[in-house]
Amino acid sequence: MGFSGSIYRQLQQISGKQNLTREREECLCYAYDATGTCFLPDAVIFPGSEKEVSLILKLASTENFIVVPRGAGSGMTGGSVPVNGGLVLVTTRMNQILDIDENNFIARVQPGVIVSDIHNRVEEKDLFYPPDPSSSSVCTIGGNIGECAGGPRAVKYGVTRDYVLGLRAVLPSGKVIQTGVRTAKGVAGYDLTRLIVGSEGTLAVVTEITLKLLPKPQTVKTMAVFFDSMQKAAETVSHTMRQAVVPRCIEYLDDASLHLVESSLSFALPEGVKALLIIELDGDGDKVEKDAKNIQNLCFSHDALEVMIAKDQAEAQKLWNARKALSPVMYKIATNKMNEDIVVPIDKIPDMVRVTQEIQKTSGLKVVSFGHAGDGNIHCNIMYHKADKDEFERAEKAVDDLFAATLKLGGTITGEHGVGMTKVKYLPQEIGGTQIELMKGIKRVFDPQNILNPGKIFH
Amino acid sequence: MGFSGSIYRQLQQISGKQNLTREREECLCYAYDATGTCFLPDAVIFPGSEKEVSLILKLASTENFIVVPRGAGSGMTGGSVPVNGGLVLVTTRMNQILDIDENNFIARVQPGVIVSDIHNRVEEKDLFYPPDPSSSSVCTIGGNIGECAGGPRAVKYGVTRDYVLGLRAVLPSGKVIQTGVRTAKGVAGYDLTRLIVGSEGTLAVVTEITLKLLPKPQTVKTMAVFFDSMQKAAETVSHTMRQAVVPRCIEYLDDASLHLVESSLSFALPEGVKALLIIELDGDGDKVEKDAKNIQNLCFSHDALEVMIAKDQAEAQKLWNARKALSPVMYKIATNKMNEDIVVPIDKIPDMVRVTQEIQKTSGLKVVSFGHAGDGNIHCNIMYHKADKDEFERAEKAVDDLFAATLKLGGTITGEHGVGMTKVKYLPQEIGGTQIELMKGIKRVFDPQNILNPGKIFH
Repeated sequence: MGFSGSIYRQLQQISGKQNLTREREECLCYAYDATGTCFLPDAVIFPGSEKEVSLILKLASTENFIVVPRGAGSGMTGGSVPVNGGLVLVTTRMNQILDIDENNFIARVQPGVIVSDIHNRVEEKDLFYPPDPSSSSVCTIGGNIGECAGGPRAVKYGVTRDYVLGLRAVLPSGKVIQTGVRTAKGVAGYDLTRLIVGSEGTLAVVTEITLKLLPKPQTVKTMAVFFDSMQKAAETVSHTMRQAVVPRCIEYLDDASLHLVESSLSFALPEGVKALLIIELDGDGDKVEKDAKNIQNLCFSHDALEVMIAKDQAEAQKLWNARKALSPVMYKIATNKMNEDIVVPIDKIPDMVRVTQEIQKTSGLKVVSFGHAGDGNIHCNIMYHKADKDEFERAEKAVDDLFAATLKLGGTITGEHGVGMTKVKYLPQEIGGTQIELMKGIKRVFDPQNILNPGKIFH
Repeated sequence: MGFSGSIYRQLQQISGKQNLTREREECLCYAYDATGTCFLPDAVIFPGSEKEVSLILKLASTENFIVVPRGAGSGMTGGSVPVNGGLVLVTTRMNQILDIDENNFIARVQPGVIVSDIHNRVEEKDLFYPPDPSSSSVCTIGGNIGECAGGPRAVKYGVTRDYVLGLRAVLPSGKVIQTGVRTAKGVAGYDLTRLIVGSEGTLAVVTEITLKLLPKPQTVKTMAVFFDSMQKAAETVSHTMRQAVVPRCIEYLDDASLHLVESSLSFALPEGVKALLIIELDGDGDKVEKDAKNIQNLCFSHDALEVMIAKDQAEAQKLWNARKALSPVMYKIATNKMNEDIVVPIDKIPDMVRVTQEIQKTSGLKVVSFGHAGDGNIHCNIMYHKADKDEFERAEKAVDDLFAATLKLGGTITGEHGVGMTKVKYLPQEIGGTQIELMKGIKRVFDPQNILNPGKIFH
């Protein structure tokens, strides 16, 4: 549509000329996310306060233009991509940690704060914010709220929704609400907090988040466990979870993933390795020591080739850096990937491994799998070249097969990336038409004009 | 209204003659909950399956009559009381534990299962379902879902919402939905699961619940700590939570509560005691031992009169039985109570203690406080005789003062009992008109005819 001179001037007045742009080359920077899809916005605004967000949305309702909230643009399903154009509202200037309340174990933060900044700042005070998506060094907490981000530590600690006590948010009308509580418990009316968490910026623009914190675990122990088959690794995961020990992470890298990151590891891969588990324990020092021994024994009883325990935090960090680099490094294989974050029940992981091997065979495409095995959340990447129409079609077919198998195993098509734009057509297969009608009804209650991030989750 | 012969006959056909009644004396049994308020239903039905629930609601939509879902009727805010008459739908016949899946740490249960039956059955398999409201030996899991029940273990483990992975539920139209996932993670669309949890039976009738389970903690240690002032006990709570140890419970009993249960304790109260903390630790044996010592030292450094550690489970159980009996035993003081489950930030508990003492003075009424101090959740009981109009008015004024002080301290008016009918008039003070309008909008999406438990949460 492009913005008329009058609306554009009003936006300039709200956030200042320097915080608004409609230059094509600048708009291009806010046209994509990690999916690689690209839809050009008509303008991009960087509000500095809740007040400005409110004025922008009020103007959007009056003038009936689209607003698409965006953090760092590291999403995996196009959640922040302006698929219908409009104004992209970037929260990165609202990047203050407002308060870390050590007595009550809560932090109040603005949406544009980088997640790893939260980790660092609270850990300085011996506190702990568990959710740790792989993009934590770049992604914003606002984006994590939008998609209900997970990450490796969810095995023990849960996901973003479990740490959001309350929100301040601006409705499409410009009205500001304060949801939830600043206390450990609260049930005053419907749970609007958790309704907004995971709503992918379609219901409200979050302007302040009250996070629940935990005491920082005393000790962390990181282990790398190597197997000569994916099957054995998968069975080890399912048996580890049956112990009375819940590791904070059980990550899984298949053969292809392992060789992609080989060069950035601080050790040589054992001969014949086909799968790696990264198992991380935390808690009381003595307890962690005892559990690590038990898990080591369990791994060997499942034919592990080798179990390496990181000597110190630096060595552990190197392992994690390699793991976290996986998502971008995969483009070495092909120019494009369909990255699906399916989840299956833990004891169905071995079945899922078989399914992905089968899909690789039938599609003739490379399928790279890694992910959060401890909660059954496998990131399955189907690699293809977009320019090759046949490859693209085979990749699409492979995704269809993958999702069908996932649902058949009692799983979900998205554990932590959300539906965004890429999974819109698959959502009805999982949740059915009645639920989608309810969700559309809820969307209308919050956003009767459909101006806030339209085209996401459902059509 | 009373049911016409034709509708009544159709209901008889759905659930069988023996599972439906409109006899006044039988209806009376389903006219109240633990608040003591009484509104007579027109009929009571006991469906035996989801199919029957669906047919009942379909008929209710067609014929436009009210349906009020009910579990055991142990609620504290009138959530299941048929304030506008209609058909009470009692879920107690749907009382099957359908599946306990040890490999995937989940249980599937029907809404009428008694919560302590879930505890017992999963613990036999070395699993653990943490939420444990005081009424657990009588209340149903469906009611716990409706109100998002909490209980003492929420300090460490969170509340009901944190253990509900997915639901099957019947909408007022009779349509059945299946929300959420059967896996550890899932973000497929808006979070309808947690929207229904805590919605007090106003959005849908839950017919099946998928619960997340944990490994059963190896050891549990229960301590009774006595103080000569409520203030010192409150300060100890706030300081305990600053340790890197999170007890699974920190319960608090004031002077009045203590003397109410004195006769059922297995030990004599120490001289001069004015407050008791019950602190319970769980986890690995050695770690629990170490933590118990640390906490004992901390308590003595806050002038504890005495710290008793339960020798065995039987002794601990006796302490808990006394604690859990508190709610009913309070009627020894007066015929009625206003039982408010306020929550304040943990470090504001000492302030809240001062407030309740002040309210006791100004109202001239006995105020008995106990509750889940570890998460700031105080059950504050204002005792009065309903027949005494002046006492009733003073009690109402005392509640106004209590809520005003709670909100001023950054708290919430309900931690785990819900709004029901008793807090409808107070809700706007906490969450404001805009949020209430959103909630009403959501209610209309689910229940356009307003036939499901009307008159609750908001007018």
